[in-house]
Amino acid sequence: MADEGYQGLTHFDEKGAARMVDISDKNDTVRVAIARGEVIMRPGTLELIVGGRVAKGDVLGVARVAGIMAAKETGRLVPMAHPITLTGVNVDFRINEPDRVEIQARVRTTGKTGVEMEALTAVTVAGLTIYDMCKAVDREMELGRVRLIYKTGGKSGTFQREDDEPWDM
Amino acid sequence: MADEGYQGLTHFDEKGAARMVDISDKNDTVRVAIARGEVIMRPGTLELIVGGRVAKGDVLGVARVAGIMAAKETGRLVPMAHPITLTGVNVDFRINEPDRVEIQARVRTTGKTGVEMEALTAVTVAGLTIYDMCKAVDREMELGRVRLIYKTGGKSGTFQREDDEPWDM
Amino acid sequence: MADEGYQGLTHFDEKGAARMVDISDKNDTVRVAIARGEVIMRPGTLELIVGGRVAKGDVLGVARVAGIMAAKETGRLVPMAHPITLTGVNVDFRINEPDRVEIQARVRTTGKTGVEMEALTAVTVAGLTIYDMCKAVDREMELGRVRLIYKTGGKSGTFQREDDEPWDM
Amino acid sequence: MADEGYQGLTHFDEKGAARMVDISDKNDTVRVAIARGEVIMRPGTLELIVGGRVAKGDVLGVARVAGIMAAKETGRLVPMAHPITLTGVNVDFRINEPDRVEIQARVRTTGKTGVEMEALTAVTVAGLTIYDMCKAVDREMELGRVRLIYKTGGKSGTFQREDDEPWDM
Amino acid sequence: MADEGYQGLTHFDEKGAARMVDISDKNDTVRVAIARGEVIMRPGTLELIVGGRVAKGDVLGVARVAGIMAAKETGRLVPMAHPITLTGVNVDFRINEPDRVEIQARVRTTGKTGVEMEALTAVTVAGLTIYDMCKAVDREMELGRVRLIYKTGGKSGTFQREDDEPWDM
Amino acid sequence: MADEGYQGLTHFDEKGAARMVDISDKNDTVRVAIARGEVIMRPGTLELIVGGRVAKGDVLGVARVAGIMAAKETGRLVPMAHPITLTGVNVDFRINEPDRVEIQARVRTTGKTGVEMEALTAVTVAGLTIYDMCKAVDREMELGRVRLIYKTGGKSGTFQREDDEPWDM
Repeated sequence: MADEGYQGLTHFDEKGAARMVDISDKNDTVRVAIARGEVIMRPGTLELIVGGRVAKGDVLGVARVAGIMAAKETGRLVPMAHPITLTGVNVDFRINEPDRVEIQARVRTTGKTGVEMEALTAVTVAGLTIYDMCKAVDREMELGRVRLIYKTGGKSGTFQREDDEPWDM
Repeated sequence: MADEGYQGLTHFDEKGAARMVDISDKNDTVRVAIARGEVIMRPGTLELIVGGRVAKGDVLGVARVAGIMAAKETGRLVPMAHPITLTGVNVDFRINEPDRVEIQARVRTTGKTGVEMEALTAVTVAGLTIYDMCKAVDREMELGRVRLIYKTGGKSGTFQREDDEPWDM
Repeated sequence: MADEGYQGLTHFDEKGAARMVDISDKNDTVRVAIARGEVIMRPGTLELIVGGRVAKGDVLGVARVAGIMAAKETGRLVPMAHPITLTGVNVDFRINEPDRVEIQARVRTTGKTGVEMEALTAVTVAGLTIYDMCKAVDREMELGRVRLIYKTGGKSGTFQREDDEPWDM
Repeated sequence: MADEGYQGLTHFDEKGAARMVDISDKNDTVRVAIARGEVIMRPGTLELIVGGRVAKGDVLGVARVAGIMAAKETGRLVPMAHPITLTGVNVDFRINEPDRVEIQARVRTTGKTGVEMEALTAVTVAGLTIYDMCKAVDREMELGRVRLIYKTGGKSGTFQREDDEPWDM
Repeated sequence: MADEGYQGLTHFDEKGAARMVDISDKNDTVRVAIARGEVIMRPGTLELIVGGRVAKGDVLGVARVAGIMAAKETGRLVPMAHPITLTGVNVDFRINEPDRVEIQARVRTTGKTGVEMEALTAVTVAGLTIYDMCKAVDREMELGRVRLIYKTGGKSGTFQREDDEPWDM
Repeated sequence: MADEGYQGLTHFDEKGAARMVDISDKNDTVRVAIARGEVIMRPGTLELIVGGRVAKGDVLGVARVAGIMAAKETGRLVPMAHPITLTGVNVDFRINEPDRVEIQARVRTTGKTGVEMEALTAVTVAGLTIYDMCKAVDREMELGRVRLIYKTGGKSGTFQREDDEPWDM
């Protein structure tokens, strides 16, 4: 059947041409996705971020705004992603001493398709923003472990990544 | 001095307020940045991608276009990044059997500031696109190790990440 | 309760972190918002605009297009605003002799959240466009009194700003 | 009646001012539009494109991605177009020896207004992309015959352009 | 040589991978491009447009704004196009009785690469906007003959399409 | 002369058609613009903002990011504005007891045209963001007095608005 795509890759038709897969017949349901990732850095860089947080230079505040705004851009960045009218986005951070910041994003919509890509994009752009704001002191930071943690809503039901619980936001 | 920012974080002024740092006095020079990352997946997913590449369903072709286009969006995603008129972008992939695709992006400009963020954004969005196109068969893919490999041009000179050479593109 | 936000500011969670507030549970209803503002200028500048309107150089025609298009960009400009699929936008002008142009925008949607920000953004960008097109002859124009006049739809009911009726569009 | 616009031009009100016409009262139905166009070129240019398709330099693969992404941008390019959350987009090509590539786009949504503009925009930008990628060898290519072929859904019923059937996608 | 691309297609490297071709070494020169196209319609539709022009419902005024704004979006629509800081854009129309509107766009920049794509994009989006604003009365309009007329600046010198002079703007 | 536009309105040609005026021949110089505006609100709303600033719910931090990002969007919002590669943006706030927040933006570039519109856009969108984040507690806020304070660079020399000095940023 055409809608199952090329060998299970739904973003290709049976002839192998890329497409935005048709979701007209899907139901509008509440859908939630949570993604996570981390930025690894030198301990001194982390100290600057943590210091700024309680004082003034708020790296994570800017990164949060960037992540939330990027979730809204997902459909313009990822070619086959559907444009979606999001109904809620949260981006949160956890300091993981001595050398990393964990990033978690939760996105919600009421619609015909899931919001995994939106959550992953929010995490990613929040991470890139941390990199940008600290690169003058640490060029070797690394953005890693960007992954889907949880997803619910839609026909495929609930997904929970094994041994990888979202934190409470 | 104000231009050195808050404790070396140039994207904040001396009072700690976020800013797009002033680069009016910098020279226009040729600048190059190379970034790299990887998408880890199940071996069966990698087989689908590799199969598609030689046959029809061209996941990496779409991801390449997405990465190149995303490089041009960097200034709109990363809040304090300067808008830059890029003069060249390449995105390339390397299959790393049995379970990952490596992504490398090289970006060039003639301008007043470096293009690290553009290269990192290209890698990241190419990776998210691979995720999007394969998520119907593998929800547990992970985007990781996104990092700057090489950078040249500008006052700070050439940077080469240790033990981490770019491949020839 | 978390959804009421930090001291009534719904765009922050109870810990004070900025968020796009969750509206998944809100009803889809018809929502209308009307905003107004004005551009104050030299009388000679107003004469040029009025002259152009009946003849050729149509400042207000361009400003109207800019305002309508900007309403569609609201979710990308205002960080915590929800992306909304607007169902109607009007932008109108009133010449207020001897020195100002009044701008009014009316925006409609059928959705889960109001369109105040869209109406305010339309007024604002229409005003900036008037500034841009006349700045060669009058650098001291001022955009002012940008405000919400009327709003209906949704749980909070109808709002009508006191002594400040919208004009008929 | 105001909603019928200025002499049938619904994008103008009865006073002749441009507007995004109000569709709040329209029903959400499945809507489909198919558009078509063609790029005329030198036979040698077509050979390069066809050769690349089976070998490596995939002009049409890039043009397809560009067309699909452009469909999502329609509401930002065409001033009075409503922003729409598309539910499906396909872009397809047909080689028409000796001198042209035909382009067909099919767009679907479930919403209050049709997707003709989205289909026409997809065709157009796919065509411009072919031009861009081949202009180094053929500056005289021409994009032509961009037209609506088929449309269904909504109050006005089904439209099928005479003697101009869509091909099977 | 790599920069000549795959069989003369500069937007592909010698392995056939799509790329934004490197122009870092090109000179900054004044570059101009002029493109043209036309919208074919029923005579009655043309009468409405012409009538509106002298009276109120200004289809061509809106289309002109759309074309100028679209020129600025070119780098975001056409995947391998370089982002360019345009220094001037004009869009003009010519009524061609009894059934068509001709569109001409002239774009200028001082930079390292030509602005053909910007001129073609301006023509195209102006044409789509005419279609959008008149489609309620004429669904069978056709956008055609979109082509480059003239180009100057850069290493390849001046191009003038044969028997196809730009009109004076 | 055509470049002086229609009665001094440079954004129109001598026939009155809107255009992006040609600046190819202008010199690249350092250009600075400073704009200012204010948001008037209930005293209780201002207290919430001030409280949040020292504690957690950072309205002004989010508004600053929004203003800086909006400066980069100016060329896409204001139809005849030239796209510009900004070299520096600052947005700052001043609490004006008991009922208003003053906003100041300073924008710099090295280019062929001034950055007034960018500074005005930054002020405006920062103001709209304050409105958005506080509208749940105060729908009657007003954005006002948006104006150019200072401008330097380019042929027209330095402009300083009378009795309206920028504050030190």
